[in-house]
Amino acid sequence: MKQIEQIKEWGGYLNRYTHYANTCQCEMTFSVYLPPQAATQRVPALYWLSGLTCTDDNFRVKAGAQRYAADYGIALIIPDTSPRGDSVPDIPERYDQGKGAGFYVNATQAPWAENYQMDAYITRELPALVEEHLPLLPGIRSISGHSMGGHGALVCALRNPGMYRSVSAFAPICNPSLSPWGLACFSLYLGEERALWEQYDAVCLIKAGAQIPTEILVDQGTADEFLDAGQLLPENLKAACKLMELPLRLRMQEGYDHSYHFIGSFIGEHIAYHAQVLGLRR
Amino acid sequence: MKQIEQIKEWGGYLNRYTHYANTCQCEMTFSVYLPPQAATQRVPALYWLSGLTCTDDNFRVKAGAQRYAADYGIALIIPDTSPRGDSVPDIPERYDQGKGAGFYVNATQAPWAENYQMDAYITRELPALVEEHLPLLPGIRSISGHSMGGHGALVCALRNPGMYRSVSAFAPICNPSLSPWGLACFSLYLGEERALWEQYDAVCLIKAGAQIPTEILVDQGTADEFLDAGQLLPENLKAACKLMELPLRLRMQEGYDHSYHFIGSFIGEHIAYHAQVLGLRR
Repeated sequence: MKQIEQIKEWGGYLNRYTHYANTCQCEMTFSVYLPPQAATQRVPALYWLSGLTCTDDNFRVKAGAQRYAADYGIALIIPDTSPRGDSVPDIPERYDQGKGAGFYVNATQAPWAENYQMDAYITRELPALVEEHLPLLPGIRSISGHSMGGHGALVCALRNPGMYRSVSAFAPICNPSLSPWGLACFSLYLGEERALWEQYDAVCLIKAGAQIPTEILVDQGTADEFLDAGQLLPENLKAACKLMELPLRLRMQEGYDHSYHFIGSFIGEHIAYHAQVLGLRR
Repeated sequence: MKQIEQIKEWGGYLNRYTHYANTCQCEMTFSVYLPPQAATQRVPALYWLSGLTCTDDNFRVKAGAQRYAADYGIALIIPDTSPRGDSVPDIPERYDQGKGAGFYVNATQAPWAENYQMDAYITRELPALVEEHLPLLPGIRSISGHSMGGHGALVCALRNPGMYRSVSAFAPICNPSLSPWGLACFSLYLGEERALWEQYDAVCLIKAGAQIPTEILVDQGTADEFLDAGQLLPENLKAACKLMELPLRLRMQEGYDHSYHFIGSFIGEHIAYHAQVLGLRR
């Protein structure tokens, strides 16, 4: 991996790297915030998965998370949301399919399967890479994300027991098999076999018995336009967790929307939650 | 003034307004963050002046200031950096002249003089407007800004004794008469009469005896590319304050650059400083 940018922030460093991803068969860019503590010791990592249309840049610029990461001594690992490059298939006229909309699955359908292997990238290739090259505590990870990335965080945690110490999400697409965004991308990347869709759907995974050791923390704004549009379906997550007795702390945040202003208002509480599970103190 | 957007953030509201500005003879857009306290009482205001190329959007999205404004109960008033609209003169190929580069002066030269009246807009028209329509404590104001806006904040405070309770700046253009950016805009907007330039130059104003009742707080990153390029000249501000016995707290921040990541790292300390002068507690 090659470092292409370094910016000092909150006493630590916001770095950007590129590398050739074997999973996605293309050059990938990601950002890492290393808190001041990482100058002298290895630190745990919080993976952040972004939503539709985002790159690694949105979260690092808009959420104000680095402040809390510096407080607690936790690294932020911020990947891109899809494979990139001229050779990667895309539907340029759609913001919600193709580039910027990888949906954190391993595609099985042509022409997507060659590059759209975001599940393998996020849960296998990227952790191995950053834990080899950066001052991170191997295997000590938590995960969070927003919207499509909230879906990704939940699914990564549910599919990989023990891989993440804690999971949280902002306005996640809880039940993508029933959401217009999810339906469109799943049929595109995974074809029409619904049993495969269910392997990447938090509600379906929970109903099928997937476990998470700690409480799942979810914030959802009540003024979120995509809530009324039926894209997010937190009520289905709530019902599934209740059915399977999985601990869920779903907070409906009165008057908040779907934007980074919403994320910024609560990211400190999410990082405090992950830090507590990870045994960190500010 | 017409409200065109409202976003809930940190328990308060980030609002955006448009209005016809008599000073600038055009439609202007600005943002205001009203902290939760403003729902039940009038609050003081911190004016933020942004740098070259910015609109009212950059600071509200990138600096993370709203969190601290909510902590202390201070409103943030975030104007644009120049007049706008198709009828406003511009030099489209220059990022540092014309639109986005108002330099917070009242232009005297054609064709700029008709619209580029940013000094009058910032110090007269905008405060009168927001204090009439929003839950602000009349006349209780502080001011801060970045780069061109840091210059603006210093000059607004130095030219208007008593108008602002406190002033701070991030990487300000301290001595624009000697900076390539300032030279270009001053000659464009103000013509070649140097005595007029000095009315909008913090170092010249201080040397001419301008007073500020409280300490001036300035943060400057040592890795700021525009510092080495001679655009900012904090050493001239330091010398002028020393000469005139004006209290200056100039903090050279090791390794920080000119970006919003630098601002975000220290905006909390600036707001804490203004809050202390304004008599606010978190």
